[in-house]
Order: sequence, then structure tokens, then C-alpha cells
Amino acid sequence: MAFSFELKHTDRNCSARVGKMVTAHGVVDTPVFMPVGTRAAVKTMSPDELKKIGAQIILSNTYHLYLRPGHELIKEAGGLHKFMNWDRPILTDSGGFQIFSLGETFKITDEGVNFKSIIDGSSHFLTPEMAIEIQNDLGADIIMVLDECSPYPSEKKHVKEAVERTLQWAKRCKKSHHSEEQALFGIVQGGVHSDLRKYSAQNTVEIGFPGYGIGGFSVGEPHDMMFEILEDTISYLPEDKPHYLMGVGNPTSILEAIGLGVDMFDCVLPTRIARNGTVFISTGKLNIKNSSHAKDFGPLDPNCDCYVCQNFSRAYLRHIFKVGEILALRLLTWHNLYFVFNLIDRAGKAIAGNSFLDFKNSFIGQYTGEDFK
Amino acid sequence: MAFSFELKHTDRNCSARVGKMVTAHGVVDTPVFMPVGTRAAVKTMSPDELKKIGAQIILSNTYHLYLRPGHELIKEAGGLHKFMNWDRPILTDSGGFQIFSLGETFKITDEGVNFKSIIDGSSHFLTPEMAIEIQNDLGADIIMVLDECSPYPSEKKHVKEAVERTLQWAKRCKKSHHSEEQALFGIVQGGVHSDLRKYSAQNTVEIGFPGYGIGGFSVGEPHDMMFEILEDTISYLPEDKPHYLMGVGNPTSILEAIGLGVDMFDCVLPTRIARNGTVFISTGKLNIKNSSHAKDFGPLDPNCDCYVCQNFSRAYLRHIFKVGEILALRLLTWHNLYFVFNLIDRAGKAIAGNSFLDFKNSFIGQYTGEDFK
Repeated sequence: MAFSFELKHTDRNCSARVGKMVTAHGVVDTPVFMPVGTRAAVKTMSPDELKKIGAQIILSNTYHLYLRPGHELIKEAGGLHKFMNWDRPILTDSGGFQIFSLGETFKITDEGVNFKSIIDGSSHFLTPEMAIEIQNDLGADIIMVLDECSPYPSEKKHVKEAVERTLQWAKRCKKSHHSEEQALFGIVQGGVHSDLRKYSAQNTVEIGFPGYGIGGFSVGEPHDMMFEILEDTISYLPEDKPHYLMGVGNPTSILEAIGLGVDMFDCVLPTRIARNGTVFISTGKLNIKNSSHAKDFGPLDPNCDCYVCQNFSRAYLRHIFKVGEILALRLLTWHNLYFVFNLIDRAGKAIAGNSFLDFKNSFIGQYTGEDFK
Repeated sequence: MAFSFELKHTDRNCSARVGKMVTAHGVVDTPVFMPVGTRAAVKTMSPDELKKIGAQIILSNTYHLYLRPGHELIKEAGGLHKFMNWDRPILTDSGGFQIFSLGETFKITDEGVNFKSIIDGSSHFLTPEMAIEIQNDLGADIIMVLDECSPYPSEKKHVKEAVERTLQWAKRCKKSHHSEEQALFGIVQGGVHSDLRKYSAQNTVEIGFPGYGIGGFSVGEPHDMMFEILEDTISYLPEDKPHYLMGVGNPTSILEAIGLGVDMFDCVLPTRIARNGTVFISTGKLNIKNSSHAKDFGPLDPNCDCYVCQNFSRAYLRHIFKVGEILALRLLTWHNLYFVFNLIDRAGKAIAGNSFLDFKNSFIGQYTGEDFK
């Protein structure tokens, strides 16, 4: 097995931890944020740039790659790493989340899920076994079981059905996965129900995986509820395995979740909001379109040492954003990803020094205004 | 005066030349291609990348910058170099060409030209003096006189009027330009009429400039006619001053024009066609959208040593282009600009060895299919 996880240190004052994942394509220090390369490219960024700003591992979406260009083609290309020229670790999701969130019509049975392609409306049927086969072809270092993510709000009995089905699918995924090079993670579901989360976590752990995704959060539930249930959920997961909070990526939530013992994050948020003109800066969010930046010749964030903040002014970025230059999307994306990587890097150092809570409170105290939820 | 030009060598077998321009922001080896940064950004590219692939000097458009973000703002930012973070030489055009080519309604008088903004339809009046003032504010190393470019075809008497007006405007531009840091180039017009080209060239030279633009080509006239008149036009220009063929940028025309004694080029072509999926390769043009590239895991051009050709396959580039990833536009632009820089670099070496004609014929012999006109 090419994969291992070493828990190196837990902050003395909270559950925040630093660790080390070893994968077939190299080492990943945790906590870690995985930028999303939906269709085999992290939007606007080149692989070299991602490395330069500190990306250790990226996530790519099985759903999109399965539809275009197709997993067979990527296999023929020598796998996703070679296809997209990324030689560091990759995680692929199972495709389930996109089926449920993007598709207008899908039908779940115990056997699998029937869905229509968002591209051409064609019908497809995805089973746990196929999710593994596709991910085997893509060749990511970490792959995920096919799960059923309940929307919020959902009737509890439907959430329970989804938990049961996710457990059955997890067993089938594990059974059909044979690659030594790829680590298969289980996924905990259960919505906002403590008892279902406990049940899901305990039974997923019972099946046994080298790491655990925590799915079904940040789907519309109240923010405080998420952290309460998240803390509870993590308590049922083994300490010596990575904890991956799926789909959360705003700065304050990342810090809160790290404080509860989360090791891995992914989210389109930093890249998506950049393309809408919004960046994270140390004092909160900033929208580059605002006219107040028209003659501001200072950097996006005076406290940031990224390439963008060292070389371009708000006035310039606003100008090129407003006239529609692609360079604007690139530079804002660059800054946002750097901001998140740098934040987590500093969080890791604080954890090592047992001062994570101070670090978190200081950051959040400075970061004014509403964060994304 | 910060500007000088040194003619270093002329090929023994043709008029192709290598030279050196010294500007306020550094040295430019000629022949040279200037990528176009219309709105203070070369589309999709960062300044660092442009340097990495060999851009010595870029062109930016006065018309666009005047309208957005405004020359006063750029002056306040410390000039265009600082505003866009480009510390190598810049050339700005006068704005005239865009007024005539983009505007639906404009009215030329001897005093200047009245036009409506393509952004909001507002009315503006540009005089030769204003063209200089705006370009003084932008602070480019080389600036251009306001000229009147005749479309093709035009009645000869209209072309003659445009030549006369361009001469009058050139005098007024020269008179109102006082910056020692910026070299003001004259522009030769005259359409496809040998006698008018001769008249325009001789009288522009009479006014006296440190360099000469040759305008009004590649506006729809037959291709062969362009080279015939171009050769004739250059014969009336001083040998010891740079010859700048405005708006021409396809590989075969660049080589033909270099052979006639052209030193400088600019064109949106390499960047524009890249965003439509077309690249130059040594055997001709290639459209990445073609299905024949779907499973082609080789590079765009096996003979190219650019970052794109060294790291990405046609299959990958086709995939990311077809799904609309910005990275595709970046990588194709990167390759096309590198292709042109590399072509001119090799042309310069061939000139130094008096073998330019062989080089040109060998390139054109390999480059099959129609080139852009």
C-alpha cells in the first residue's frame, strides 16, 4: 500500500493537528487545502504556478472527467497525472456529489444511480463498482467511495436511507478496489442528525478505510450547527487516520474546522469568487470592482507577500477585471489560493507551537464582515 | 534623447537587417515582434511570462487606454510601465487606427478627428497635440504620430488627402512633443499607390523622426501588392533608422517583410487566433479543436521547445479548450507568441550569417497551407 498517514502533533489546547500523508506521488503535510481542478485544470492556473504557491495536492472531479474527455482516454494518456502534467498527489471524488447537485433528474436505487449528462442529456448509470473502475483509470492517489449526500433540509428518514445506502456502497467500493497505488477513503454522512452521524461514522470505520471524508456539510444547514455536528462526528473517527471535510473552503470555516481536528479540505470557493472579482485579504473580503479601488495604487493585501500583491495594484487589477482581461481572473485566483495555502501553513506552525487557538482568534478578529458560509 | 538605433548588419544577399534600438527602458534587438497589450495587458499573459518567452517590447493602444482607465489615471499611477508592471520598452500607437477601424461614426477635419467611444457612445475629439499629450502621460518609450489610415479600396484622391493630412499632423505632433525620454516615430501612408507612398515617405523623412512606421498595409489589399509597394516604400526611408511595419504578424509575411528591410512588427494575430484554437506550428496552422487531435498525445509542434510543447499534449489542450478552460487560451497564446519570437530570433541569426534567404525559403517551404493574410 503506497499510502500512510502519520499524526505528528495535536495542539495541547484543542483538537487541531499536524500530520503527514504519504501517497504514491509524494508527501502531503496536513492540514491541507486541495484546490479543485474540476476538468483536469485548476481554473486559470498552470501546474507550475500551483506548485509555486504551495499546492501539495489537487482534487479533480470524476463526474466531469467521465463525461469529458472520458476516463478511457485519460487512461490511454497514462493517467490523470500525466494527462494534465501534475506530478504531485491527486484526489478524485466519486462523482456522486455532482450527480446530485448538478443533475436535474437522477434516480437512486440500491444498485446505483441513474443520471442524465449535463452536457448532452444522455443517460448514464453509475454503480459503486463503476465509480471505483473510473477512478482506477484516472489513477488518483486518493479516491473516494460512492456516497449519497442528502440535501438540507431533508426528512430524517431519507437521511437515514442515504446513510444506509452509503454504507452498503462503501462495502462494495472497498470490495471492488484492488489498486495498491490508490488509497480509498470512506465517507461519513448523516446530515445534521447526531445519532445518524454517529451511526454512519462508526459503521464506516467498521468497514475500515485509510482515511475518512465527512460529506454532507455546507449544503445549506445553519453554520453553527455544522461545527457542532462536525465536532461530534470527528469524535467517532480514528485519531490515526486523516479527516477530510469535503467542500468547505472559506478562511474562517477552515480555521474552525482545523480546531476540531480536520486535516483536509477542498472547495471551489477561492477560485470561483476570484473569477467574480472577490478576494480574501487579512481584514476580510474585498471586491475589486468597487469604485473605491479605482485610484488605489496599493496592493490587494498589504500583509500578503504573494506575486500579485508584490507586483500589481488594486487600481490595475480593477482596470483589467472591468475590461474583461483574463489576466485579472488569473491574478485574483492566484492571490486567493495563496491566501488559503498561507493561512493553513501558518495554522500548522501555530499547532506545532500549541498556539493554534490564539492564531485562530487573532485571524478571525481581524477578518471583519461576513465570511462565506 | 534616450533613443538610438544602430544598424549592425545587412544580409549580403537581400535587404534583411539586424540592429539594436536603445530606449529609456532598455535595449531591443531587431528584427523584433511586439505583442499587443491593448488594454495594458497582453491577453492571457503575465509580464513575467512575456519576459520568459522573449518579449523585448510590447505595444499598447492609446485609444483603449484613453477611454479606460484614462491616461490621467495611468499618469497618476506613475505611467504605463509601472501601472502594468512591465519594465521593458513599450510602444504606444496614436489612437488613430482604432478610431478608424472600430468606430462606426467618425469625422475627420484638418484639425483632428471626432469619434464616438465604443464603450458608451460618448463624443471625443482627438487632435495631433492631444495624441501626443495622452502618449506623454502614458510614458511609452516609443510613441507614434496621429495619422490617417485609408481603407482598401479607396479612391486615390482620398488616399492623397489622407497622406497630406498625415504629414500636417506629423509636423504638429513633432512640434508638441518635448519628452526626451520618448522617441516619436513618423508614419508613412499612401495605400497601394507607389507615387503616394514615395511622396509620403520622402516628406515624412523631411520632417525627420528617429524611426518610421509604415501604416495602411494589411487592410485588405492583395497580398503580393503589399510586398511590392512595401519594398518600394522602404527604399525611400533612411537606412539608419528603424522601419516598423504596422499591424502585420503572420509568420510568412514577417519573413517576407524582414527580407525587404523591416525591423519591427506588431499584430494581435498570434494572440487572437490562439483564443480561437489556432496555433502556428512548423508545418503550418493547426486547429486544436479538430477531432484528429482527440487522442494525439504528442505535442503541438514536435520541433518546438516551448513550455507548452514540452509539457502538454494535443489531446490535453484539445480537451481543456473544448470545455472552455482559461488555461487552454493561456497555453495556446504562450505557444504562438513563442513561435513568433523564436522565428524572428532564428531569422536574426540567419541574417548575421548572410543566409536569411535560405532560412526564409526553408521555413516557407515547410509551412504548408494558406497563411493568414
